Amino acid sequence: MSKKTLIVFSGDYDRVMAAFIIANGAAAMDDEVTMFFTFWGLSALRKTDGAGAPSAVKSGLQKMFSGMLPKSPEKLNISRFNFGGLGRSMMKKVMKSQNVMSVSELIATAQEQGIKMIACTMSMDVLGISKEELIDGIEYAGVATYLGEADESNVNLFV
Amino acid sequence: MSKKTLIVFSGDYDRVMAAFIIANGAAAMDDEVTMFFTFWGLSALRKTDGAGAPSAVKSGLQKMFSGMLPKSPEKLNISRFNFGGLGRSMMKKVMKSQNVMSVSELIATAQEQGIKMIACTMSMDVLGISKEELIDGIEYAGVATYLGEADESNVNLFV
Amino acid sequence: MSKKTLIVFSGDYDRVMAAFIIANGAAAMDDEVTMFFTFWGLSALRKTDGAGAPSAVKSGLQKMFSGMLPKSPEKLNISRFNFGGLGRSMMKKVMKSQNVMSVSELIATAQEQGIKMIACTMSMDVLGISKEELIDGIEYAGVATYLGEADESNVNLFV
Repeated sequence: MSKKTLIVFSGDYDRVMAAFIIANGAAAMDDEVTMFFTFWGLSALRKTDGAGAPSAVKSGLQKMFSGMLPKSPEKLNISRFNFGGLGRSMMKKVMKSQNVMSVSELIATAQEQGIKMIACTMSMDVLGISKEELIDGIEYAGVATYLGEADESNVNLFV
Repeated sequence: MSKKTLIVFSGDYDRVMAAFIIANGAAAMDDEVTMFFTFWGLSALRKTDGAGAPSAVKSGLQKMFSGMLPKSPEKLNISRFNFGGLGRSMMKKVMKSQNVMSVSELIATAQEQGIKMIACTMSMDVLGISKEELIDGIEYAGVATYLGEADESNVNLFV
Repeated sequence: MSKKTLIVFSGDYDRVMAAFIIANGAAAMDDEVTMFFTFWGLSALRKTDGAGAPSAVKSGLQKMFSGMLPKSPEKLNISRFNFGGLGRSMMKKVMKSQNVMSVSELIATAQEQGIKMIACTMSMDVLGISKEELIDGIEYAGVATYLGEADESNVNLFV
């Protein structure tokens, strides 16, 4: 048993999926896993359909950025062949037929397995994302917390 | 002597090139290197000119995805200034004049040096890529195998 | 106290920013940090306004590549919602209002903290970037130097 960390910087459906597959795989092998979500990766932690979004307290620019971000993990775009969401839908169809979990299912599994998910508070400020918009059961911290976890881990990836 | 792993997720010519330069450099210093190719990174392992592609056994969606993927490592696009392949051609011209190896040459060197190359079977299913389409001398496995290798390595990168 | 390395491959404003935030955070915790700038990441080390660019000694293709690259760290594009620089300007405005440092400020802090910054000489050749175009106080080396540093580090990231 050892520790692993993943920084999820990317908000692409395929990269987020890869991060969760690695994280869930490690947790299944009894590793302690910490995922640190920063910048576009924060989109993966958004509540479906933007529930709880208190847009009133955001500045205009923050409202604009958070408004442009995908509203839920299943709305993330794939990094190639997305074609306005069509490519993503088709990829998800193939995944289903091959019994590959969707990102939402991977997130649920990660939470069941006790993977520690941390939202980067500095990125939340820059992109205008509030705690109310993110899913329950996650933690909030900055780079020092990430570095503390990484120091104790034997595998650290930046996705 | 130590071990290193690289996950090659990206299918960009420049990123794949960087991964192989690091891998070959480490192997030249007597490190044991494992490269795990997943998602778009699988394109780098394709046989030139799509030889052996048994498109008949693929579903329509898989055929579509694998059909859109580059047909050989030298057909990968660069992540910037690609301009429909023109940028890539020009970058390769400069590389040649500076005695920098192409991705095909880097792959050949990696195989000569005994670098272990693993194709991610789950990604192959999603993208509709069959073993017959990939180069010889590689292995096939999933995330558990990757994690086993990473646990024994002192440098693990996600490219 | 331990060692950390970061490969800065990306030339996106947001990714470069993330790399420096991690690097500066680690240095603040007394870690020894090495940043290895390669490919598009080299843009982050360019002198403002292209001072010192000796374009005469470059080949036509090198001139073209280096001519297309951003002329200073603050001219890097963000990886999403850049809109020809408008998105970047707006992100920087929010950052300022949230007391988040710009990339130029992060670089200055990195230099004050004694972070070792290495420019990849092979990438400089391919992209046609000369030492005169890059900021002072950095080192020049290749992949073997990076691997030596990574071997001594407990956290190694590819950004």
